[in-house]
Amino acid sequence: MKAIQWTDEKLRLLDQRKLPHETIWFEADTVVKAAEAIQKMIVRGAPAIAITAAYGMSMAIRDGISRQEAHNLLLSTRPTAVNLQWALARIHQKEDTSVLSEAIAIHEEDLKINQQIGQHGAPLLRGKIMTICNTGALATAGHGTALGMIRSAFAKHGDIHVYILETRPYLQGSRLTAYECMEEGIPCTLITDSMAGSLMATEDINAVVFGCDRVARNGDTANKIGSYSLSVLAKHHHIPVYVAMPRSTFDSACPTGHEIEIEERAPDEVRNVQGKLIAPCDVPVWNPGFDVTPASLITAWISEEGVTTSSIELVK
Amino acid sequence: MKAIQWTDEKLRLLDQRKLPHETIWFEADTVVKAAEAIQKMIVRGAPAIAITAAYGMSMAIRDGISRQEAHNLLLSTRPTAVNLQWALARIHQKEDTSVLSEAIAIHEEDLKINQQIGQHGAPLLRGKIMTICNTGALATAGHGTALGMIRSAFAKHGDIHVYILETRPYLQGSRLTAYECMEEGIPCTLITDSMAGSLMATEDINAVVFGCDRVARNGDTANKIGSYSLSVLAKHHHIPVYVAMPRSTFDSACPTGHEIEIEERAPDEVRNVQGKLIAPCDVPVWNPGFDVTPASLITAWISEEGVTTSSIELVK
Repeated sequence: MKAIQWTDEKLRLLDQRKLPHETIWFEADTVVKAAEAIQKMIVRGAPAIAITAAYGMSMAIRDGISRQEAHNLLLSTRPTAVNLQWALARIHQKEDTSVLSEAIAIHEEDLKINQQIGQHGAPLLRGKIMTICNTGALATAGHGTALGMIRSAFAKHGDIHVYILETRPYLQGSRLTAYECMEEGIPCTLITDSMAGSLMATEDINAVVFGCDRVARNGDTANKIGSYSLSVLAKHHHIPVYVAMPRSTFDSACPTGHEIEIEERAPDEVRNVQGKLIAPCDVPVWNPGFDVTPASLITAWISEEGVTTSSIELVK
Repeated sequence: MKAIQWTDEKLRLLDQRKLPHETIWFEADTVVKAAEAIQKMIVRGAPAIAITAAYGMSMAIRDGISRQEAHNLLLSTRPTAVNLQWALARIHQKEDTSVLSEAIAIHEEDLKINQQIGQHGAPLLRGKIMTICNTGALATAGHGTALGMIRSAFAKHGDIHVYILETRPYLQGSRLTAYECMEEGIPCTLITDSMAGSLMATEDINAVVFGCDRVARNGDTANKIGSYSLSVLAKHHHIPVYVAMPRSTFDSACPTGHEIEIEERAPDEVRNVQGKLIAPCDVPVWNPGFDVTPASLITAWISEEGVTTSSIELVK
């Protein structure tokens, strides 16, 4: 499953707003289209938007658009995931003629990084596992981060049952993670976000695992809204919390979670589900796209370099 | 707002599956129709289904249907809320000729009980309050239990802002509670269930308040799925948890929460939102309608008789 494809002149992106019921490809043949794809969540997931932005820069250069302008356009699409900034910083250091090959390198490295995260993380996962959002092949160059760990564990020993939180408001869990698990035969059960506590109280859950959009220097971890609630519930039930963290998601310039900008999204994402109104059309809404889990609630971070249980060791 | 109306020969029930976008009345002119209304959640909320069952029995007697048969039919509709059993037990003690007047008494008493709960509970609520599900006029004869407390507090001092959890899978929060608050001008903000923890971490929340479907002798409290998660999160953030509890919801025959039967509902309620498929159509689902919050996580129970902070004092 390759949701991001580069065809020498344009990006083909599997439109994640339509999955799992429609398989539609979005073609981004300009930097403006690439920025649109990120902003409208046609492509989502911290690693995937970093790759998309890198190719966006290469198309800007090809089309004679000012690098600064293209950089600003891409940077303004979504504020929380630091991977976007990280990819643009890598591109920034390259001459025009090397930008495309750098984008391809970022793309290819991501797959390798995910496989390494899976390898390091697989021994931690066995039995009943809970996860939130989508951190699979659809959110990355392939394999996935947190779902990559689950995938690797399932391939290794087979003793895996994933409980998937549906992940309102955008339903990345029910639409994307459930789809990936069903496609690959990984045993899974879908629950609403509200059932997480009750599930922990009634079943022997061995671990919670999720991805991240930005990890601050002290280990505070921004991820999809709901990750913090899930971590507090896990603590109450003495269940370990694992964060799959490509090193590109670690932001050493950000001291703590307080400094992470949390994207607030449109109220209609909460008032509607897949275009169906589920509330009074004018009810006030709070819709943060992410929350911050303090380092103290996280058992370990798993990167391409290995497993770290101490937030102090995250800084190299 | 009177969602249950008795017209001398039939029940008129405001169809809660269609709210807030369609105002459709369901007419139940037989006990079979009354049972159908409860079973299909046309009417929901522990007090409201008790009233509906009582009128159902009166129609059964009028139509010459065996009392035992009608009793069993109504009892089988939904297992968790003890109010249904309580109303049927009250009816059981009456001669045929007194059943209708007993049903009317149950109906009228419920409104009075809710107003008393509101009066006792209002002093506990001020500022930012969180609630789950719908416990308002729509779930009762009028006024409401937990939302009745909020309503009374708002009428008394005006210093109330309600954060409403949307309450997946059935969306009683976004569809019903948001509707009641908007209709009455009670300041409110809708959030997804997954945002509860993050809201507690970033805003000064003064209290969590919800209703109940059955309270065991030791104070363990069954309520809408998600109430347990919310209570664990409240404990972590040192926020009091209040349960609005008509005495009819207290089940002295049930020793602890372990003995409360939790209704498991159809998987399609999770796979769909208002008829829109949001997941692979065959993904396995866990869909308990309720969960149990242990007494230790509850600060106080508010009944028509007053405020009780000790679960031992619940038994009279």
